[in-house]
Amino acid sequence: MNMNFNSGKVRPHLTTRSVIPENQETPIHFISFIGPVADTIFYRRNHFPYPILTPESFTLKISGSVDRALLFNYSDLLKLPSKSKRVLIECSGNKRAYFVEKVFGEQWENGAMSEGIWKGVSLKTLLELTRIKAGVSEVVFRGRDAGVKSSQYIHFERSLPIAKALHPDVMIAYEYNGKPISHKHGFPFRLIVPGWYGMASVKWLNEIILIKDNFTGAFQTDDYVYYFRNGKSEQVTTNHVNSTIQQPLDKQLVKSGAHNIRGIAWTGSGAVSKVEISFDKEDSWEPAKLEKTPKEYQTVSWSYPIEFKSGNAYHISVRATDSEGKTQPAEALWNKKGYGYNAIMHITVKAE
Amino acid sequence: MNMNFNSGKVRPHLTTRSVIPENQETPIHFISFIGPVADTIFYRRNHFPYPILTPESFTLKISGSVDRALLFNYSDLLKLPSKSKRVLIECSGNKRAYFVEKVFGEQWENGAMSEGIWKGVSLKTLLELTRIKAGVSEVVFRGRDAGVKSSQYIHFERSLPIAKALHPDVMIAYEYNGKPISHKHGFPFRLIVPGWYGMASVKWLNEIILIKDNFTGAFQTDDYVYYFRNGKSEQVTTNHVNSTIQQPLDKQLVKSGAHNIRGIAWTGSGAVSKVEISFDKEDSWEPAKLEKTPKEYQTVSWSYPIEFKSGNAYHISVRATDSEGKTQPAEALWNKKGYGYNAIMHITVKAE
Repeated sequence: MNMNFNSGKVRPHLTTRSVIPENQETPIHFISFIGPVADTIFYRRNHFPYPILTPESFTLKISGSVDRALLFNYSDLLKLPSKSKRVLIECSGNKRAYFVEKVFGEQWENGAMSEGIWKGVSLKTLLELTRIKAGVSEVVFRGRDAGVKSSQYIHFERSLPIAKALHPDVMIAYEYNGKPISHKHGFPFRLIVPGWYGMASVKWLNEIILIKDNFTGAFQTDDYVYYFRNGKSEQVTTNHVNSTIQQPLDKQLVKSGAHNIRGIAWTGSGAVSKVEISFDKEDSWEPAKLEKTPKEYQTVSWSYPIEFKSGNAYHISVRATDSEGKTQPAEALWNKKGYGYNAIMHITVKAE
Repeated sequence: MNMNFNSGKVRPHLTTRSVIPENQETPIHFISFIGPVADTIFYRRNHFPYPILTPESFTLKISGSVDRALLFNYSDLLKLPSKSKRVLIECSGNKRAYFVEKVFGEQWENGAMSEGIWKGVSLKTLLELTRIKAGVSEVVFRGRDAGVKSSQYIHFERSLPIAKALHPDVMIAYEYNGKPISHKHGFPFRLIVPGWYGMASVKWLNEIILIKDNFTGAFQTDDYVYYFRNGKSEQVTTNHVNSTIQQPLDKQLVKSGAHNIRGIAWTGSGAVSKVEISFDKEDSWEPAKLEKTPKEYQTVSWSYPIEFKSGNAYHISVRATDSEGKTQPAEALWNKKGYGYNAIMHITVKAE
């Protein structure tokens, strides 16, 4: 007989968007971002099946336009000076499902993002050990995940401009929340590019190649490009200023009485400067309370206390503004592949 | 170090809609309905916290307008003649999220349904042992789950008309898929009302009361009522004829080449008689292939082979018709609480 009577415990689960490859959302409406997000509910976004672990997985090769190519193994990396940083990672397709003119692709809602503490080695430190040649323009990062894309067998590969690669906050991480990064999130090495959308933070990082040209891999010049309505295009890079209402949910029947409207806000450059809430379809705005002083590369949790009155419906909008003066638009800038959605989020709820 | 390298295994999860009380969807797009659905991914729909198990949980009392009130305990029930039946259970709020004019309440998508093998005792057998008094009109079923609703502390209670209660297929189940029903799904006893929406299949069933009046509990006369636009209202009872496309997903970028469009279809009375698919926005229809001869109370899995051509977009609609001639409408009958949605499902996909 089933005597597991502790099973009254309720856990929010990842929301499955695809099984092959695995794409699942963080259950963002049912967890807190005040502490770091647990690895087990960190969103998963893959282009290929999970790579199989081999001895080669534990090495990191740096080559190309350098005076001294280097091969690090796992224990070498762990001996180098390290740093820990709390950093959010958000998929550039986060919120794609909300484009009014629908876009093909994974229909991510609000949960293609997570945040926690990454520990690793500064990429700058490693690159400087190689003695970079003059004229290097980009650094290519190759993951061990691979498969067929547009009839070609390729690895997941992305580049950074050399200036960004040398930014002291870019790191090669080997721990998440105090433990080795799990296999599903890039074990043993994951590039972490704070402030950029998640495609830049290459998992299962295995090779770093310095080049003098522009990298033209499929995930650089085909995917992860904004193709705008006016025919122009632009690389996807920095996270847009954004916010999400975690609770209540859109179209929820809430109980009358005291509630906290709560959520998160974030930006890719600078820090969030304010979060505002509107109850009159964005005519007037009031400040939400921030949980802490907003920091670079991190979400800030916010809340707004309210008394819901039985029978009433509420239209609730939230927008974030950052220290560079950027603010969420009423409408997201439509682009063919559906990246960077950051329109003001609004919900309606009704009190019972 | 994290050496769990089997973690490349991918499992679809329940989709969380609410944590208190627990409401989670079956990951319907990522599992098969050909075999019974595993208990662990069976959708969960609760009104209250899970009831705590006490000695009283193991008894079932039948009283009211009967000559002989009865009290069964768990082992009594298990000694009575039993039967097993594969039965689908679908929440009446399944697909609520798809009403064009949005409805407040849990925003269920396609996964508020599951199907498997229930084993138990015919309700009719038990009721007849009580010698039902003349004039009994309804049978009330009380679950052990309870809480505050509209300022009153109440149990989850529902009634059936006496004729329905005496239908030989209505049973008091104690096993699901060959094991005792799990705590989250009603252990030890769950009423199973084949062909009716899930609210009728009362979990943690503890008392059965025969009455001569109309039962007016909140879950009978407030919730689970169709309130139509024309001011009329009607009790929610039989499942509507319905179907869901499981794969591909709406707005999916599919690979070019051979695919199987696949899904499920079901109805509450009679059996599915055909499933049709349209590629021209419902002007013309072609038959899908049914996995087996459709049976009463069960979904039938269907498929349609197709060759997707690179660069093309496809508009795909599916509709089911049942043996009573009922067919899915182009638009669902809107009702204030959002029950019984069964409009023709359509998706668009694009081949890469």
